[in-house]
Amino acid sequence: MIPEPLKKFIDLFSKIPGVGLRQAYRIAFWFLKHNKAFMYAYGFSLKEMADTLAVCSQCFFVFEKRTEEQTFCVICSDKSRDHTVIAVVEKETDLISIEKTKQYRGLYHILGGLITPDEHNNHDLRLKELMERIDRNPQTKEIILAISHTAQGDLTAMELEKMMKPFAINITRLGLGLPRGAEVEFADEDTLSNAIRSRK
Amino acid sequence: MIPEPLKKFIDLFSKIPGVGLRQAYRIAFWFLKHNKAFMYAYGFSLKEMADTLAVCSQCFFVFEKRTEEQTFCVICSDKSRDHTVIAVVEKETDLISIEKTKQYRGLYHILGGLITPDEHNNHDLRLKELMERIDRNPQTKEIILAISHTAQGDLTAMELEKMMKPFAINITRLGLGLPRGAEVEFADEDTLSNAIRSRK
Repeated sequence: MIPEPLKKFIDLFSKIPGVGLRQAYRIAFWFLKHNKAFMYAYGFSLKEMADTLAVCSQCFFVFEKRTEEQTFCVICSDKSRDHTVIAVVEKETDLISIEKTKQYRGLYHILGGLITPDEHNNHDLRLKELMERIDRNPQTKEIILAISHTAQGDLTAMELEKMMKPFAINITRLGLGLPRGAEVEFADEDTLSNAIRSRK
Repeated sequence: MIPEPLKKFIDLFSKIPGVGLRQAYRIAFWFLKHNKAFMYAYGFSLKEMADTLAVCSQCFFVFEKRTEEQTFCVICSDKSRDHTVIAVVEKETDLISIEKTKQYRGLYHILGGLITPDEHNNHDLRLKELMERIDRNPQTKEIILAISHTAQGDLTAMELEKMMKPFAINITRLGLGLPRGAEVEFADEDTLSNAIRSRK
């Protein structure tokens, strides 16, 4: 009773993270309420992403690949940026958030996740790639661990510091303090202590 | 810094119901972790839906359109089904759920939503189409209001009954009672009263 192309759509879209079977059905019927051109636009947008985007061989951010030789993203190939500093981030959207501040002019390294105590999950992280990159680029002066101040973020920062010891590079981490808009009265003790220590 | 094809993807996918800007970003980078063929499959599935599926001119369910002349879905064109009974449902997935029970052999009418007290929202519902359909098919003997027993469902059922009065057709509604697996002790008064009344 359910047409084959619809079944296929549901099967594929229910696999997208955060989308289950029920939402996949809802999305399918939402699409079918629109016209052909509307659905084509979505299909084409996916095809265009597949055809034109590539992942930077150095920092692992995406970029529009215009020639076969191009392997570096816009940021890594920007000569006006500071190539002696690398900010290590968990994921692509962290890079985007930092870029939006316009406060940082160095390079990035996208880890692709955080280190977990369960070692099995860590083989997907680009840890080896980071070490090789630092080894390959002796001009690297500073590594900023732009990683969340959570338990898993702290573990990751600790492990990264250990791994980078042989390189004798300056390793820093994003400052702790009160977030903009936070009221002193309601800040937790830990946040407040950090805000006092990092006063200026 | 964000490549144009990625921006376009985010812009389109963040418009899907239940998917916001943040999840659209997450979905985009999830796609980019996979290979080209993977993304193509999703794009193709959307194109295939657009190219092959149509909405039934009678009940508004989807079907695979194989010839230009075909305007009825698999259910409406099935001669072995009882064409004298129409189950009115809110949405496509309700039809699918009822079909799964294999207890119903009549036809359907997908309203496309429920009636709200705010009249402005009711013009998208296929109310006129239902009335015209009953008018066109004098063999119709029964209309089953297969609509949720909620406040909005009750309002919809009431309005539909009013609208169908001139046709002098038998109008029924899905039975009320205890849902399978429910414990008597924890059933609310209303549910329990209905279960007692519909005992057999």
